[in-house]
Amino acid sequence: MQRALALAQEAARVGEVPVGAVVVKQGEIIGEGYNLTRSAHDPTAHAEVEAIRRAAKALGDDRLTGCDLYVTLEPCAMCAGAISHARIARVYYGAPDPKGGAVDHGARVFAQEQCLHAPEVYSGMGEAEAAELLRGFFRERR
Amino acid sequence: MQRALALAQEAARVGEVPVGAVVVKQGEIIGEGYNLTRSAHDPTAHAEVEAIRRAAKALGDDRLTGCDLYVTLEPCAMCAGAISHARIARVYYGAPDPKGGAVDHGARVFAQEQCLHAPEVYSGMGEAEAAELLRGFFRERR
Repeated sequence: MQRALALAQEAARVGEVPVGAVVVKQGEIIGEGYNLTRSAHDPTAHAEVEAIRRAAKALGDDRLTGCDLYVTLEPCAMCAGAISHARIARVYYGAPDPKGGAVDHGARVFAQEQCLHAPEVYSGMGEAEAAELLRGFFRERR
Repeated sequence: MQRALALAQEAARVGEVPVGAVVVKQGEIIGEGYNLTRSAHDPTAHAEVEAIRRAAKALGDDRLTGCDLYVTLEPCAMCAGAISHARIARVYYGAPDPKGGAVDHGARVFAQEQCLHAPEVYSGMGEAEAAELLRGFFRERR
């Protein structure tokens, strides 16, 4: 999660909403990313999607079976769907996101009966730091 | 939708689940794609995500305001989230997907109170052909 938080800081530095994510396999980071929707002109370029795409490319497999994802913010519906498709085993997220999150809020993607693969979910790790990064970012933009 | 169906056929030809999508702006196709999760080793490479990413790159903007998306199958949670983030104005989908769809089934992403942007949704256009493509594909793999 420390690495995910550093990636979130990097996002803030380049003017993107500060969210960072890493995919870990057997203790090693195999993919990482931060939010870069604006600079990449890509609405799908959330931290989780970036990290998952890189990890899948690195493994040469569209399934990340047995891998864990660490992300500083509760995933949205798009990212929760990507996590499920990628067969991520465990998700650790930092700050909850009542407005945009779709794991423990809103669409609750993993809780749907039709969800083919739901990871184990753990929240709160690095929450204070992750939330403060977001608060600071939006405070500066106001 | 004819172009989306042709893209779905192309997906089947290369061994991918046959789903195709196009993004249209003022009557012109500005992005298109088909499912290539396996060949690209990318669990996020659904037809809609591919079409949206290309359209956003083409416009140089992460928002596809005023654009329409035509897709042969009801979008999943990941794709519905991407559609919302991209600010797509109208979604036309062919076949409903009770097992994996998240527009009129399951997570119903656009119907969530927290959904910041919900497109208008129209279904059934090209449904018979889209469904037959999928049935034929899965029949052959059994």
